Amino acid sequence: MKLDYLMPARLLLGENCVIEQRSLLSPLGKKALIVMGKNSARKNGAYADAAKALEANGQDHVLYDQVMENPTDTCAFEAGNLAKTTGCDFVLSIGGGSPMDAAKAAAVLAVNKISKEELFNSSFAAALPLAAIPTTAGTGSETTHYSVLMDTTEADGKTPRAGGPAKRSIASPLFFSRFAFLDAKYLLWLGRNITVNTTLDALSHAIEGMLTLRTNYLSNILARESIAMIMDCMDDLLSFPSEPSAFSAEKREKLLLASSLAGMVIAQSGTALPHSMGYYFTANWDTAHGRANGLLIKSFLSLCREKEKKDPSIAPRIPGLSAALGMDMERFFDLLERLLGIREKANKTELSAWSAQPMKNAANTYIKPNQEEIGQIFRESVG
Amino acid sequence: MKLDYLMPARLLLGENCVIEQRSLLSPLGKKALIVMGKNSARKNGAYADAAKALEANGQDHVLYDQVMENPTDTCAFEAGNLAKTTGCDFVLSIGGGSPMDAAKAAAVLAVNKISKEELFNSSFAAALPLAAIPTTAGTGSETTHYSVLMDTTEADGKTPRAGGPAKRSIASPLFFSRFAFLDAKYLLWLGRNITVNTTLDALSHAIEGMLTLRTNYLSNILARESIAMIMDCMDDLLSFPSEPSAFSAEKREKLLLASSLAGMVIAQSGTALPHSMGYYFTANWDTAHGRANGLLIKSFLSLCREKEKKDPSIAPRIPGLSAALGMDMERFFDLLERLLGIREKANKTELSAWSAQPMKNAANTYIKPNQEEIGQIFRESVG
Repeated sequence: MKLDYLMPARLLLGENCVIEQRSLLSPLGKKALIVMGKNSARKNGAYADAAKALEANGQDHVLYDQVMENPTDTCAFEAGNLAKTTGCDFVLSIGGGSPMDAAKAAAVLAVNKISKEELFNSSFAAALPLAAIPTTAGTGSETTHYSVLMDTTEADGKTPRAGGPAKRSIASPLFFSRFAFLDAKYLLWLGRNITVNTTLDALSHAIEGMLTLRTNYLSNILARESIAMIMDCMDDLLSFPSEPSAFSAEKREKLLLASSLAGMVIAQSGTALPHSMGYYFTANWDTAHGRANGLLIKSFLSLCREKEKKDPSIAPRIPGLSAALGMDMERFFDLLERLLGIREKANKTELSAWSAQPMKNAANTYIKPNQEEIGQIFRESVG
Repeated sequence: MKLDYLMPARLLLGENCVIEQRSLLSPLGKKALIVMGKNSARKNGAYADAAKALEANGQDHVLYDQVMENPTDTCAFEAGNLAKTTGCDFVLSIGGGSPMDAAKAAAVLAVNKISKEELFNSSFAAALPLAAIPTTAGTGSETTHYSVLMDTTEADGKTPRAGGPAKRSIASPLFFSRFAFLDAKYLLWLGRNITVNTTLDALSHAIEGMLTLRTNYLSNILARESIAMIMDCMDDLLSFPSEPSAFSAEKREKLLLASSLAGMVIAQSGTALPHSMGYYFTANWDTAHGRANGLLIKSFLSLCREKEKKDPSIAPRIPGLSAALGMDMERFFDLLERLLGIREKANKTELSAWSAQPMKNAANTYIKPNQEEIGQIFRESVG
């Protein structure tokens, strides 16, 4: 057996943990850069709590609240420059994957004079310490060493990229947070769509994490637990109330922890084929990242099951996944379909263009899908 | 729900991982202090591998190989002074809990001019980076922030302690290793007694970890897995071969990982009553630490079950433990008895003296045992 496990963040879960555990932030320095989006961190109270916690610690903060969905390289450089020019000692992100991922890059850019390509190639050796307050339950960025940014510019950092923006993933141990504060009260206002879509993201992390070549014993333990926790919330998700605050607070917390565990999974295993394929839906249709993966899961898992049956050289993994789900795959597919609702449809041009694309994560996927099979998954999922 | 999880060590498991992953040690500095005992690290090949890995990295090392079982404060100061006077940059421990625990204290003493009491009270703010190569599967010290040392001297650090040596536990986040290299090949030569006793230590960590007030959702996940892995090795342990190398290598590895997971458990949950009580057997009879806990488990768990049934204010935990064990408690007790063999017996003076002692971990034990119940466990276990 081989195993390589690292997740150095201290995970703090509980109501009011930002305020109650604020002293943990004291050793990080005198001034924080807070990285967040324009709205939700104010609406859900997380920014107010963070500001209060820092103030009580006698720490200043500088605010960067311009992170957009699918954050760009430009945004990361802006935030990094702000940290540099204002002399910030650490970076605290508040939000979903977008602010957390932008904050990771900003923490690096604050202390390195590097080009955009050096950032994307992980050519850096230092970063400000990071802390994160996730306010959605999906990305798991608080427990991973990944940052996903849009590469939008040419090497000059200004001219728009000739081929159009491209989503790129950066990995570095420096991207691990020191602290992740998980307080489900910031999620209570989230409506059906974002709740379901982020859950699909966490679920796809945990499921894909069981199906890569880098899957290991410990990542599987965490993946199974994450999946079981999410499936335990499935009925509540399917009967999501018209008033978001009526969604079970206990289940919100369960989904939040499940998402962090799924982050711990992919920090070891990496992701599998659906994560590469889903980018096309997001790039072309603006489909939410979690939903994009969710659209692909059924066909992907069906292919896995089929190849396992046909090829005795592939050690079967679907039975273990089915056990973690607590049901047979057909029943799971049915639940998934009910969560997804009406599927997006691609036109013929899109289908044939995407089906010809090499997929980065194919090599890390245990069934080693070929190009024809990738085309088949696209057709079955959105054809 | 509340949760506080931290285990920042990078866990590397696999045959030859010390050699193959040696480059990870490079950033730790130019010179290592290797801390180990007199014999086993040489016999099992771990010292040779570590020396080879460091040499290949261009790193020097200084050797401290005087750690005894139940290491003393004096030994930790010796090792710390050696690191200081020879200018070591990091500390690499090889062995069971004794070298790992001594190394943790040495890493602190190398960079702090502090007294023995300051060490025992965690009054220090820096330590050299640590790495560990566990060569038994029991202590889990490679994934904990605990160091257990014998307090043997008066404040001068020389005169023998008036009340005799006392086992004391020190906790500090600085005691977490940066890297833990888990290679089961170093364990292949271990005979029945040490294999069983260290397994009992890991098992008691995982079981007790499910039964403390600090138990949380994530510690329980890890505890259940650790218990399941150990129980999966039970038949092999019960039919331990006369030639140690005939014991399944795959099961050795499973026990090694289970022990690290159990360390991750107690790093969150702390230990429960048996760990406090077992110290009396070790101090008076030189009973191996794991066996000492093992002797107490049956009576302790029986009391837990009884109190759960009687007192509706105690949320039941034995059913969850039984599920993790994969069997009812009576069957588990029977297996445990077969593992333990003939029990040690205390005389009346010992029993009455120990039964009157306050037990530190009682307060962290979910059933809140009283003094009468502590006496009952002693009598049932070794009476």
